[in-house]
Amino acid sequence: MEFFFRPRGVAIVGATANRERGGYHIVYNARQGFTGRIYPVNPRYREIDGLPCFPSIMDVPDPVDMAILFVPAPAVPDLAAQCARRGIRGVIVESGGFSEVGPEGQSCQEALRRIAADTGLRVWGPNCMGLIDTATKTVFSFVSPSIWEDGLVRGGVSLVVQSGMLSGGFLMDAMTHGDAGFSKVCSLGNKVDVNECDILPCLLDDPDTKSVGLYLESFVDGRRFMEICAASDKPVVVLKGGKSAGGSRAAMSHTASLAGNQWVVSGALAQAGVIEATDFKQMIDLCTALAGTSRWKAGHGARIAVVTYTGAGGILSADFMEGTGLILANLSPGAMEALKAIYPPWMPPGNPLDLWPAMERQGPLKALSVALKAVCADPNVDGVLLHTFVGGVISYLDLAEASETARVAGKPLFCWLLGRNKEAQEFKEAARRHGIPVYGELYRTVESMAALFRWRPPQERR
Amino acid sequence: MEFFFRPRGVAIVGATANRERGGYHIVYNARQGFTGRIYPVNPRYREIDGLPCFPSIMDVPDPVDMAILFVPAPAVPDLAAQCARRGIRGVIVESGGFSEVGPEGQSCQEALRRIAADTGLRVWGPNCMGLIDTATKTVFSFVSPSIWEDGLVRGGVSLVVQSGMLSGGFLMDAMTHGDAGFSKVCSLGNKVDVNECDILPCLLDDPDTKSVGLYLESFVDGRRFMEICAASDKPVVVLKGGKSAGGSRAAMSHTASLAGNQWVVSGALAQAGVIEATDFKQMIDLCTALAGTSRWKAGHGARIAVVTYTGAGGILSADFMEGTGLILANLSPGAMEALKAIYPPWMPPGNPLDLWPAMERQGPLKALSVALKAVCADPNVDGVLLHTFVGGVISYLDLAEASETARVAGKPLFCWLLGRNKEAQEFKEAARRHGIPVYGELYRTVESMAALFRWRPPQERR
Repeated sequence: MEFFFRPRGVAIVGATANRERGGYHIVYNARQGFTGRIYPVNPRYREIDGLPCFPSIMDVPDPVDMAILFVPAPAVPDLAAQCARRGIRGVIVESGGFSEVGPEGQSCQEALRRIAADTGLRVWGPNCMGLIDTATKTVFSFVSPSIWEDGLVRGGVSLVVQSGMLSGGFLMDAMTHGDAGFSKVCSLGNKVDVNECDILPCLLDDPDTKSVGLYLESFVDGRRFMEICAASDKPVVVLKGGKSAGGSRAAMSHTASLAGNQWVVSGALAQAGVIEATDFKQMIDLCTALAGTSRWKAGHGARIAVVTYTGAGGILSADFMEGTGLILANLSPGAMEALKAIYPPWMPPGNPLDLWPAMERQGPLKALSVALKAVCADPNVDGVLLHTFVGGVISYLDLAEASETARVAGKPLFCWLLGRNKEAQEFKEAARRHGIPVYGELYRTVESMAALFRWRPPQERR
Repeated sequence: MEFFFRPRGVAIVGATANRERGGYHIVYNARQGFTGRIYPVNPRYREIDGLPCFPSIMDVPDPVDMAILFVPAPAVPDLAAQCARRGIRGVIVESGGFSEVGPEGQSCQEALRRIAADTGLRVWGPNCMGLIDTATKTVFSFVSPSIWEDGLVRGGVSLVVQSGMLSGGFLMDAMTHGDAGFSKVCSLGNKVDVNECDILPCLLDDPDTKSVGLYLESFVDGRRFMEICAASDKPVVVLKGGKSAGGSRAAMSHTASLAGNQWVVSGALAQAGVIEATDFKQMIDLCTALAGTSRWKAGHGARIAVVTYTGAGGILSADFMEGTGLILANLSPGAMEALKAIYPPWMPPGNPLDLWPAMERQGPLKALSVALKAVCADPNVDGVLLHTFVGGVISYLDLAEASETARVAGKPLFCWLLGRNKEAQEFKEAARRHGIPVYGELYRTVESMAALFRWRPPQERR
C-alpha cells in the first residue's frame, strides 16, 4: 500500500484550471507538500498553473505509481483499466455516482471491482475524499485548500473514515480549535477494493501513528478486522454508523453498506480490545487520550487525584468517575503534609482537592505548582485530573512545569478547561505540544482518561 | 427578592483599592453597568477609584437596600447584624470559610443563620459568587473584570449555580465561544437562607428568562422545589452534583450539602417535568434549546428532516434519534418533487437528505435554500436538523433566509456545525441572533432538539 502514501509520481485525472472545482483543489493540495512528481491529466488543458497537463494517462511519463481519478463515474472503469495497462499500481477514485446512487452507479462500481480483481490494480474508493498525511504534508484530496491556511497540525492520531465530506470537516474543525493533531487521515468511501483491513495495518506500522480511530458503516471482512485489532499494540477506536434501523437504511444509500447487527458488532469489537466510540468528536477525543499509551505506561491502578479551583467541578468529577474504572485516590500522609503547607489552617486538603483557598493565599501559580508536585509524588496516585481556567484572574498555570512534573513522575495528566476563547485556544495548542490532553467538557475528560487507564496491550488482555 | 436584583443602592463591605483582589473586582464590576448608588465600605480607605469609601456600614447614606459582604468569615455575622440595624433588606455574602471548612466555619454560618431568622434580613450565600444580570448589566460579583471585555452576551437562559468559581468560568467560556446568551446568573453557595426556592420563582417571573438551568448539590426544601417546577410554564433543567458516593462526600466539604438519594431525586425531578442534565455545558446546551419553547409551539409530532452535506452525518443523526422521541420524517410527494428539481437524475432524494450531489450541481447556496424551503413546507415535517460547515468551499448558507424560512413555517431549525474556528464563532453568534441553536457535537444537537420536542407545559403533561 506504500504507493498510495508515498508514490514517486501521481497522475491526477480530471484535473482542471477552474479554481472553484475539486479537480483544481486536488492539484493545488498535491503541490503544497508532496515532493514527488505531479501529472495533471485532462485533454482540454496543456498546463494548469504552470504544471504540464497530459491528454491521457497513457501520455504520463515515468515515474508514476498512483493516480487520482476525479471524473464522472461512467468514465472511471475504462480509465482504471488504462492505469493498470500503464503500470500504475493503485488509483484513488474520489468521484461519487457509484453504488450509493442506485442501479446505474452500481454497474459502474461492479465494472471497477472486476478491473481491480483482474489486473491487480488496487482501487481506493470510489466516493471518497482520499488521504492526508500531515507528517509528509501529503494531501491527495479535493478537500478545500483553506486547510493549508491553518497549517496541518501534526499529532499521534490517525483516522480511517468511510465518508467523504466528513473527514475534511473533521480535520479543519479539530485542527483549528486546537482539539487534536493528526498523522494520517484516510477517507475510504465505498470500499470497492481497498478497505479497513488494508489500511489499518499500514497505520499500525506507521511510527507517527499512536492511536487509530475508524468511522465505519460496514466491515468488509469482520473476522480479519477483529484479528488485526486484537493483535494491535496501538489502541484502536471504532465508531460504527448505521446501528439503528433508520441509520442502517441511510448507510445503504450512503456507501451501499450493510450495517450488520449492532449487538454482534459491539461484542466482537469489545472482545478484540477495541474501544467503541459514540460520536465523531468523541472518537477523536478518545484517540487523543489513547495516543498517550505510547508515552505513559499506565499501571494497573487507576487512582486519580482531582485538582480543581471549583468545588462543583470536583464533585462532578467524582460522580463521573463512578463506573468508569477510575477511582478517587486516598492521598498519602506525605502528600497531605505538603498540601497543608499551602492551605489555610481552617481548611483540610482532600481529594477532590479544591485548591481555591490555597490559590487565594499563595497565588495560583505557587498553589498549583506545590499541589501538582505533591500529588505526582504520591505513591497512592496513578494519574492527575487538573481543572484549569484561562482568561481571568487565575490563569496562571505553568504548563511547561506541570508537564515536566507529570513526566518525571510518569503519571498521566489530563486537563479540563474553561475560559475565554482566545486564551483557551492558546492553552490547548500549548498543552498539545506538551502531550497533555485537554477537553472542554468535564464528562468527556473523565471518559477519555478512563479509556487510557482501561486500555491494555494484547498480552495483558484477559 | 427584588432588592437583590435592583437595589436603589448597594454597600460593598470589604472593598479594596488593590486591583488584584476580589474586593476591588466587586466595586469595579458594580460600576460598569449598575445604575444605582454604590458605597464601598472599608475603614482603611477614604475613596476607591474616586468613589467615597465609608468607614462602616452605619455611615452609609440612603438609599441602600442591599450589601455585599466580602470579609473574613468570623467578621460576617456582626456585619450582617449591623446591616439589619441599618435597615438593609438583604446581604450577599461572597466570602468563604463557613460550613464548607469544618467546625469553626460552621459556627460562623450558624450565627449568620440566626441573624437572618431573628431580624428578617435575607442572606444570600455565603461562599458564593453573587449575581450577574446581563439585561441590566448588573454584576454583583468578584468575578474577573475581564468578563466585560467580551461584553455580556444577552440571551434567554438563566442559571442558578450552587458554586462560586464555576458560575464565572461557565459564563466566560459560554459567552466567548458563542455557545449561549444569558439573562440572569445566580451563584448561591452554602444557601444559609436564600435558596433555589427563593430564586427560581424570580427567574420564572423574569420576562428576559426563557429557560432556567440549576446546578444543585442539595435541595433545601425538595417538596416546595418540585411544586415550583411542576407549575412552571418555562422549562427547568437540573444538574445534580454528588450523585455518587465520592461526589456526595465532596459535596459535603464544598457547600456542606447532604446530597440525598439519587434515584429518589431523579424520579421526583422527572415527575415535576424537570429535564435532568448530565454535565455543565450540556445543561447550558439543553437550556439554549429549551429557550425556544417561547418561540416555537412544538406540536405533538417530532418528525424531523435531516439536511446534510455528509452521508455519515445523516446516518449517525438517524442512529442518535433512536430512543429520543425524534423520528425521521417521511417526506411528502410535494417535497420530493421540489427536491428532485435540484438533484442529479441518478440520485433520489431521501431523509436523511444528503445534499452534496445537489450542492455540486446547483451551488450550496441554492441547494440549501431549495431544500430548506421544501422540508419546511412539508406537512410531514415538524422540525429540521441542518448540518452546516463553515470555512471551506461549502460555507454558503444564507442564515437570515434559513431562519426566516423556519420562522414562517413555525418549525424549529437546529444546526450541527463543523468548521474553522474563526468562521465557526461568527456563525454561532449570527445564529444566536436569529434564535437558531447551534452545536459542535452531533449527539448533543440531537439530544437538545429532542428535549425541545419532548417538553410540555404543565397543563399538557400526563
